[in-house]
Amino acid sequence: MAKRNGGYHLERHFADRLLLACAQKETKLVVGLDPHFDLLPPHLVKQAQAAAGVDNPRMAAAAAILLFNKEIIEAVADQVAAVKPQLAFYEQWGPPGIQAYEETVKMAHQYELLVIADAKRNDIGSTAQAYAEAYLGTDDDAVRPHEADAITINPYLGWDGIAPFLQRSSMGKGAFALVRTSNPSAGDVQNAQNAAGEPLFVHVADLINEWGNSYRGNSGYSALGAVVGATYPQDIALLRKRMPNSLFLVPGFGAQGASATDVAAAFNADGQGAVVNTSRQVLFAYRQVNDPTNYAKHARNAAKQARLSLNAALER
Amino acid sequence: MAKRNGGYHLERHFADRLLLACAQKETKLVVGLDPHFDLLPPHLVKQAQAAAGVDNPRMAAAAAILLFNKEIIEAVADQVAAVKPQLAFYEQWGPPGIQAYEETVKMAHQYELLVIADAKRNDIGSTAQAYAEAYLGTDDDAVRPHEADAITINPYLGWDGIAPFLQRSSMGKGAFALVRTSNPSAGDVQNAQNAAGEPLFVHVADLINEWGNSYRGNSGYSALGAVVGATYPQDIALLRKRMPNSLFLVPGFGAQGASATDVAAAFNADGQGAVVNTSRQVLFAYRQVNDPTNYAKHARNAAKQARLSLNAALER
Repeated sequence: MAKRNGGYHLERHFADRLLLACAQKETKLVVGLDPHFDLLPPHLVKQAQAAAGVDNPRMAAAAAILLFNKEIIEAVADQVAAVKPQLAFYEQWGPPGIQAYEETVKMAHQYELLVIADAKRNDIGSTAQAYAEAYLGTDDDAVRPHEADAITINPYLGWDGIAPFLQRSSMGKGAFALVRTSNPSAGDVQNAQNAAGEPLFVHVADLINEWGNSYRGNSGYSALGAVVGATYPQDIALLRKRMPNSLFLVPGFGAQGASATDVAAAFNADGQGAVVNTSRQVLFAYRQVNDPTNYAKHARNAAKQARLSLNAALER
Repeated sequence: MAKRNGGYHLERHFADRLLLACAQKETKLVVGLDPHFDLLPPHLVKQAQAAAGVDNPRMAAAAAILLFNKEIIEAVADQVAAVKPQLAFYEQWGPPGIQAYEETVKMAHQYELLVIADAKRNDIGSTAQAYAEAYLGTDDDAVRPHEADAITINPYLGWDGIAPFLQRSSMGKGAFALVRTSNPSAGDVQNAQNAAGEPLFVHVADLINEWGNSYRGNSGYSALGAVVGATYPQDIALLRKRMPNSLFLVPGFGAQGASATDVAAAFNADGQGAVVNTSRQVLFAYRQVNDPTNYAKHARNAAKQARLSLNAALER
């Protein structure tokens, strides 16, 4: 695949690429490609099942996902800076599911979209190395079309489980470490307090900011970003101040309940420093109006509306 | 696949199945199936490359892994209670790698070995659900041969990211949550101290023990176990007392430096309560004697030696 200008341009630092895509498209939006099988438009599922045959449910599911993702990517490409496939919904279907994931990455790159593999991988150093190769590639083959531009990772194992991902920052690749997640039970571990009464996620934030310091691009932001959920808005402003080096990937906007105003705190005064993910609210917008045939049109409208409402909240 | 007695018997609780396998084979050993490509016997790699063709390096790698795993599983089956494939080394090769993982699970089940998928998965509830289906299966299809018996998980997201895995305890499935890992940087996050000076991993240990309490089998042990690394022996004894409900999966024995005496602290006075993993020391034992042709024989000898040294350390 030829290297091009714009988002899918590997010489450039990952943070710079992501911010460039945001600037060019006037967007802060990322769409999560989380193809919950039960929510796919029924006609796509039938079409895929007919092609794959009744004996091959995993192949059929993977084919339905690909049909769906193709239209979604085309529909939202000029509204979003990146797409974020959630690996679980591909791994669920075994080898055909992983094939669908790889084809999805290729399609997104054809539309010059950045791809963030939402994999939340974590392991000891030699194994983290294998995960980094699996999702971000190796020096040997700097451009393989099915490789993502960035990956989400879990920080519980500390620095040596993160380093192999950052070794790929010189290839234009990045990682977002979980700091504060968006789920109801996030506090069970992340809110554990130290002697000063500070929650664990603040300690993790300090580590991520420090580790990312040596991996900053021209923008000043690091190839090591942070996942900071939007469902706990009181924490976002604190973390924004505490992690000046880190781009935030903000989940929880839309279906999980956070508003555009809630997520505004993830941004610096210059309107930079974060991208905001929404998944179901865009992908399955057709369900609100019960119009599966035109699912791509409804996804595009929902993405556009999300993009504009984020931009409006940031102008305030 | 017919349901049988012994390890691969789904009516029974996971902890009971694992302890039964340990008792029947007089072993505490688990072998990690971590097929580092660069360490595979060269003749297997050549054979696989010849079959797959030069244009298909991922297929060739997957084929070499399968040839290797088949012999290893056969060689160690009567020495170990379970095998623990490390997903990263399969995901590294894309769809053919996942196919090799699934075939590996099937082969292990044919030898009535339990399979612990070392995946360290973690996500918010609805996504954790998809991961649980991917690796442990669904109620619909209680026995699919490529599904593992247990999975390793990361606790950073709290209870709602763990619950979907435990829902499968009624299907005989289990999970091991990371508590104290074996890598050099484990302390970066896991040693964060609370006001009482206790490290975070003790807080996580308390949560895991509490969450597992409702999922105990006849043995008294829960379907929710804990990963407790052997490379920090001073912590094992503390955690053993603190987590009476939890079976420990103990990595770090062998190549990572922990001795049989180090890991003895993972066991209760009755000699139960843990299984101990070793990977490279068994898989690649042939490299110590530079005899790749007989790699399976050397793996078997190394597994037997590890089994006996663990048993001896526990009798002291």
